[in-house]
Amino acid sequence: MESLRFVLPQSEIPTHWYNVVADMPNPPLPPLAPDGKPATPEQMGAIFPMAILEQEMSSERWIQIPQPVREIYRLWRPSPLVRAARLEEMLGTPARIYYKNEGVSPAGSHKPNTAVAQAYYNKQAGIKRITTETGAGQWGCSMALAGQMFGLEVRVYMVKISYQQKPYRRSMMQTWGAEVFASPSAMTQTGRAALEKDPDNKGSLGLAISEAVEEAASRADTNYALGSVLNHVALHQTIIGLEARKQFELAGDWPDIVFAPCGGGSSFAGIAFPFIADNAAGGRNGKPVRLVAVEPSSCPSLTKGQYAYDFGDASGFTPLMKMFTLGHDFMPPGIHAGGLRYHGASPLVSQLYKEGLIEAMAVPQLATFEAGVRFAHAEGIIPAPESNHAIRAAIDEALRCKESGEAKTILVNLTGHGHFDMASYDRYFSGELEDFDYPEEAIKASLQHLPKFG
Amino acid sequence: MESLRFVLPQSEIPTHWYNVVADMPNPPLPPLAPDGKPATPEQMGAIFPMAILEQEMSSERWIQIPQPVREIYRLWRPSPLVRAARLEEMLGTPARIYYKNEGVSPAGSHKPNTAVAQAYYNKQAGIKRITTETGAGQWGCSMALAGQMFGLEVRVYMVKISYQQKPYRRSMMQTWGAEVFASPSAMTQTGRAALEKDPDNKGSLGLAISEAVEEAASRADTNYALGSVLNHVALHQTIIGLEARKQFELAGDWPDIVFAPCGGGSSFAGIAFPFIADNAAGGRNGKPVRLVAVEPSSCPSLTKGQYAYDFGDASGFTPLMKMFTLGHDFMPPGIHAGGLRYHGASPLVSQLYKEGLIEAMAVPQLATFEAGVRFAHAEGIIPAPESNHAIRAAIDEALRCKESGEAKTILVNLTGHGHFDMASYDRYFSGELEDFDYPEEAIKASLQHLPKFG
Repeated sequence: MESLRFVLPQSEIPTHWYNVVADMPNPPLPPLAPDGKPATPEQMGAIFPMAILEQEMSSERWIQIPQPVREIYRLWRPSPLVRAARLEEMLGTPARIYYKNEGVSPAGSHKPNTAVAQAYYNKQAGIKRITTETGAGQWGCSMALAGQMFGLEVRVYMVKISYQQKPYRRSMMQTWGAEVFASPSAMTQTGRAALEKDPDNKGSLGLAISEAVEEAASRADTNYALGSVLNHVALHQTIIGLEARKQFELAGDWPDIVFAPCGGGSSFAGIAFPFIADNAAGGRNGKPVRLVAVEPSSCPSLTKGQYAYDFGDASGFTPLMKMFTLGHDFMPPGIHAGGLRYHGASPLVSQLYKEGLIEAMAVPQLATFEAGVRFAHAEGIIPAPESNHAIRAAIDEALRCKESGEAKTILVNLTGHGHFDMASYDRYFSGELEDFDYPEEAIKASLQHLPKFG
Repeated sequence: MESLRFVLPQSEIPTHWYNVVADMPNPPLPPLAPDGKPATPEQMGAIFPMAILEQEMSSERWIQIPQPVREIYRLWRPSPLVRAARLEEMLGTPARIYYKNEGVSPAGSHKPNTAVAQAYYNKQAGIKRITTETGAGQWGCSMALAGQMFGLEVRVYMVKISYQQKPYRRSMMQTWGAEVFASPSAMTQTGRAALEKDPDNKGSLGLAISEAVEEAASRADTNYALGSVLNHVALHQTIIGLEARKQFELAGDWPDIVFAPCGGGSSFAGIAFPFIADNAAGGRNGKPVRLVAVEPSSCPSLTKGQYAYDFGDASGFTPLMKMFTLGHDFMPPGIHAGGLRYHGASPLVSQLYKEGLIEAMAVPQLATFEAGVRFAHAEGIIPAPESNHAIRAAIDEALRCKESGEAKTILVNLTGHGHFDMASYDRYFSGELEDFDYPEEAIKASLQHLPKFG
């Protein structure tokens, strides 16, 4: 019986993360302070430890993974690379489809890869408490888990509407010992001001970020942690692609094309960046691996956004970053159920896209759920709605292979399972979800609010 | 860095299930028909395929796993055996604690091990549709998954109160293509009668079984599937222990004691029975492995029940089985949140317990949740409440080792994850759950209703 799972021994957990900056044709553009001048480490030091700021600015190719971080990774890593043989058969394609299953982490997604590292560096810096925000709860859960592993208190500001509608993600954070507040909360000035204006304020990710940052900035023992977008987050996630490369060697195969969902960009960066090292050297098979970021057509920052300096948060509190953006106050329509709602794409991902080293595409939401259900029928696993974007793209590529007769090797980043997203599947089955054109007018309007320099 | 996970290659997925009947000192007592005479295969053939009935009656030691079943097992098996090193450290124990993680299946528990086999044999017998019942949804999900894998229609009668309160387990079944009806339903005579009597009937497992059996018995193309209790179910689950034995060889270790949760008995049978083969031969290390079934003190069939012939279902529709039972109409108190609510224990488990080849213990519920939270803090994974029973027992054993200085090797069956049980954790955290003495009066009352022969 042929093996479908390529499992590395734990001794093969990578010892270093890969920093794509070392292989970029041009150095990354720096973040800017609100005055339009490059942001200084001191400005960011109020909420991040120095080790993380150094990673944020580093251009070294390999950065060592601290041993205590690898020891936590060991609880679920290396994650399996799996050949989706039943899916291939169902599609009748000559393509070979593999998925890297990041849903095996205790929090159910790839997010703990960076949460654990961030918890470690903060602990090392003498920090006692981490604040962060969460929308649907994936990132909050990952930070709660990581905080528990290193004995840090974790406070999560959870968007109030999610706090009310997704109680089980909240329970999960509490099980790992985190405190969870519905945002806007009475804990911060920002929250109190929002509640004074509107006691029924249902919250937003922007507001929750502001609350978490406010608390971190005002207390010496407290730092803030972000789950995507920034360079150090992308760096920590490269463990995904580094493992996948070893696993393909084990399988005696090599990807022609990689698909990953792309919101803020960390899961795409994680699986794709390590192949850029190969591509920079001409490609392992004499041709580069195609690296494709797949975004929702309702929140199409790479494919429909503008490459400009913009704020990282909706409220305009963060430094400015050069990225493909839909405007920092862009909100995807409420009908969108597939996650990946961030208004911009990671500066590294954006620059690589601008310079043609990676590709991007957008897919409509009904097609993503259809793909996810097909995947569940074939492979068993019910994917997170985010992952369904990459699965959709992979299925379409496999069907093109069926037409052309090409036996391409396709790699998908299965970023998480859908156990806490069944309400979205319900909406899909009951016909409540719809496709819609990308919200052109809304994007135009929010792009008017881009900062006027950079 | 020491490896904590002992992962077998897929080529090592066992080729045969182990049938404990071959190593029992006495042959198992047969099921009886309602008239008190041994039930005939013909009587059971209306709802089960012949291949399964043969397994139910077999005394052959090894029974081959069909290749198509192994090919589905391959989607998640072999499941990992993991050393709980962080838990050991947290407890400060010299004991070595391992857990076999059955939560990695797409349905999140060990139940698909038998669901897949049952779907295969029914498909082979030309059956088009499977009916089954589900309470909280674990078994219904497993059967839905298995039906999808072999192209069988699956109809699940889900206890109405769960149907209303656990919509996400229902969505999961629907994602795998199953039809799910709230029971009592209008689909069967049993259901219609119950609804006529009380339109607000919230359902019970007994009623749902009756509906599923009624539909299966009345249609030639439809069979029924049961997720625990019966001999063939225990047989299919032995893949857990068979893998664990190989993994201990890989780890260079061997268990002194095995703990598994015990409701109907399939997860206990699955991990424990393969060690009975070793014990029958005197034990691998010159001493037998202790095999301990852990049940809730609110539903203590082995430790407080009577060894007698009783019905398998609450309504008295099934053949009679000799088992430790609390009486077929016993219901654990509503305050009990930990699963394992079945009134009896599998006839094989019961007979082995009666004959002293295995042990049993009961644990109160607050202690099980406390253990589950401690496990989540140490190992990351949030366990199913059922699994928490075994974890509680393992922690207590490890703490005894700390006292005595013994370095015992402990194996726990982590039967599933708790992603769909967060409401029970919520009740635990908010202080809604309580301990209580085992319900002596209720058990006395229901034992009055035992059939009067056998």
